[in-house]
Amino acid sequence: MSLPRRLLAEAVGTTTLLATVVGSGIMGTQLSGGNDGIALLANAAATAGILYVLIVGLGPLSGAHFNPAVTLAMRARGELDTRAALAYTAVQCVAAVAGVLLAHAMFDLPLLQPGTHARTGVAQWLSEAVATCGLLLTILLGLRARPAAIPALVAAYIFAAYWFTASTAFANPAVTLARALTQTFAGIRPIDAPAFIVAQLAGAGLALVLASLLLERRAPVAAG
Amino acid sequence: MSLPRRLLAEAVGTTTLLATVVGSGIMGTQLSGGNDGIALLANAAATAGILYVLIVGLGPLSGAHFNPAVTLAMRARGELDTRAALAYTAVQCVAAVAGVLLAHAMFDLPLLQPGTHARTGVAQWLSEAVATCGLLLTILLGLRARPAAIPALVAAYIFAAYWFTASTAFANPAVTLARALTQTFAGIRPIDAPAFIVAQLAGAGLALVLASLLLERRAPVAAG
Amino acid sequence: MSLPRRLLAEAVGTTTLLATVVGSGIMGTQLSGGNDGIALLANAAATAGILYVLIVGLGPLSGAHFNPAVTLAMRARGELDTRAALAYTAVQCVAAVAGVLLAHAMFDLPLLQPGTHARTGVAQWLSEAVATCGLLLTILLGLRARPAAIPALVAAYIFAAYWFTASTAFANPAVTLARALTQTFAGIRPIDAPAFIVAQLAGAGLALVLASLLLERRAPVAAG
Amino acid sequence: MSLPRRLLAEAVGTTTLLATVVGSGIMGTQLSGGNDGIALLANAAATAGILYVLIVGLGPLSGAHFNPAVTLAMRARGELDTRAALAYTAVQCVAAVAGVLLAHAMFDLPLLQPGTHARTGVAQWLSEAVATCGLLLTILLGLRARPAAIPALVAAYIFAAYWFTASTAFANPAVTLARALTQTFAGIRPIDAPAFIVAQLAGAGLALVLASLLLERRAPVAAG
Repeated sequence: MSLPRRLLAEAVGTTTLLATVVGSGIMGTQLSGGNDGIALLANAAATAGILYVLIVGLGPLSGAHFNPAVTLAMRARGELDTRAALAYTAVQCVAAVAGVLLAHAMFDLPLLQPGTHARTGVAQWLSEAVATCGLLLTILLGLRARPAAIPALVAAYIFAAYWFTASTAFANPAVTLARALTQTFAGIRPIDAPAFIVAQLAGAGLALVLASLLLERRAPVAAG
Repeated sequence: MSLPRRLLAEAVGTTTLLATVVGSGIMGTQLSGGNDGIALLANAAATAGILYVLIVGLGPLSGAHFNPAVTLAMRARGELDTRAALAYTAVQCVAAVAGVLLAHAMFDLPLLQPGTHARTGVAQWLSEAVATCGLLLTILLGLRARPAAIPALVAAYIFAAYWFTASTAFANPAVTLARALTQTFAGIRPIDAPAFIVAQLAGAGLALVLASLLLERRAPVAAG
Repeated sequence: MSLPRRLLAEAVGTTTLLATVVGSGIMGTQLSGGNDGIALLANAAATAGILYVLIVGLGPLSGAHFNPAVTLAMRARGELDTRAALAYTAVQCVAAVAGVLLAHAMFDLPLLQPGTHARTGVAQWLSEAVATCGLLLTILLGLRARPAAIPALVAAYIFAAYWFTASTAFANPAVTLARALTQTFAGIRPIDAPAFIVAQLAGAGLALVLASLLLERRAPVAAG
Repeated sequence: MSLPRRLLAEAVGTTTLLATVVGSGIMGTQLSGGNDGIALLANAAATAGILYVLIVGLGPLSGAHFNPAVTLAMRARGELDTRAALAYTAVQCVAAVAGVLLAHAMFDLPLLQPGTHARTGVAQWLSEAVATCGLLLTILLGLRARPAAIPALVAAYIFAAYWFTASTAFANPAVTLARALTQTFAGIRPIDAPAFIVAQLAGAGLALVLASLLLERRAPVAAG
């Protein structure tokens, strides 16, 4: 698979993911009459559904990362080289922003609207670290135990993590960046994004340590 | 499989699909006390459930299209000939209308009730194009990556698309036609239907382009 | 597998099914503050979940019918003999009633409470015929297309049918009988039960006809 | 797999399970505006999702018990020795408490808060016995019928049992102990915990009896 084709797969997947996260949040708040519990149920279930679809369809093309933290972990495992990892990350960030704009366009909202939803403090950061650690462990343990189930595993994990963390589990630096560009249900203040990303990377690092403790050592795959 | 038997499978499937889309919308609004978020959760989950069932059971008989946009894409791939594609489309449209009438009968409502739900404007049309493009990509990528998962993939995709598009993802010209014949939750004004169908076909075309960019070329299957 | 062991499997499964249908209905109404949409979402999802579990676990033991209409269809296919079919039906009815009593006991309600929920009229009967026809088609087409998916297919179908029929899809004579013994969410007046059962059997008959039209003929399995 | 590694897997899994049970309960009540039906839908679905993930990922490492009642049943089947069973149970209890503390920390709540939610009486105890009996039967029948489906079976069962029992199906002594340390949605008074645990163990015993009646005898696996 050529790199441009892999990057196109990452772009299609990440754009669709963000359009779903932000779009279903908007639809949820529009329909649920102020009951955010219903909105988050819809938001979480829609996100889980699209993750399953995107990882099945695009996994064989690009690995279906859609997430710089996942790309980083896969780089650490030697499954792609540094140049590809950087290109993946750049494409994920741009595509994530495109997905937010697409959601705004579909709901006839202003395309540009910097986030106003305050999400800060130690509890939120702990939530993001836990959420990202769990996501990476889901992938790393799942790859060992049952690789064909990765799409369902990531979908089920993210549904749960929307609810069991106080931050609704962004768990993805590109998603965090893009959600700083919406004032709707899924948004976050731009000023709060950097700390989220730091927490996510810390959680990803913890996952790599835990996975190495839980799993037998294995020889790294030769870097591509 | 003889063509009449394939058409019977399309008829049973499309009738059941529409009875579910419209029926679960009626039940949802009757029970949810005005909270359309709950109604759409039920509507989307019921639709996803029946899609999974219908595609598993009828897929081996007719391909389980239930959707002229899917039939068109399969014709473009050479998986059925023009005569069959036209017959499929005609049966899908008639069966979709039958499904709406069946839902009305089950809920003791007037059988004939032209839709009054306004759904128009650029944002709605963009939503339909995106929804149909996504549906076709789900199928085209899924057929390459994991054909046995197509029923679950379509179900998961449609659940998500009900929520992440502003139009609740009709994504199907026969469904659009039929939903113009109900004043209940799932309805649309007849005057708004043609633009929806144009947008859906545009989205389907975009999906064919994206799929050809994402997937390696392959020789077309000889037309039957 | 000896007949008594098969009957024990039917008894365990049918009791658990009814305890779930009735129990989750009670819990749903107790928690949802009068919003029956939320109650039916919980009721339908819990029923789907337990059906998946019961059919996987007990299918290899008894076939996991839990439903005289299914037993009748399997008798018509020659998969069990008349004596076993009658024994299955008797056990299903007794176990269904036991399940209702168990639900009442778990929720600290009077054990005996004849149903008061009126469910009658042509629309309701049509709903039951459609619901049962769909259930049988799900099973008959599923057995041909993908037998290992029967547990997921029945679960997904029943979830959808709770919502797309006006009667919430009893689709089972033993379940109907037993639900005539509760005044809670899932109940039905005893006087309304016989017409439901007639409609269910008519729907089952229609399913056998449709299945024979849709599927190639095959030699019947020799009756056990 | 060495015992310390197995215990680490039990610790990671049980901590995550409790963080999800308690965390999603907190999020559910915070967002649902007093409608506990919505909160329990989220709570049950998040718990089901994480159970699927944890059992797929950690099952090959430790068996993914996360529950002294399951460990006891597996000891009775000879699948682990007494020393390991005791170590599992100790780790499960400590990790369950850690999961509750983690949930409190993520939601910025006092870490220590003895439960105040009264859950007592014969109906509650019956509920716990039924819930645990059902969980064990799900596992024991599932291991015979379709071992690869155990993660989905346990997830589906627990979702259903949250709704069809009056106690919301703790079904796990370690979970019961830990939930006595929170005043949030999922909590229980410490004074009510011992009777729950007795009922759970009675239910587990009943499951072993029912399973031996339903399944053919088989030679026990030699104790490790």
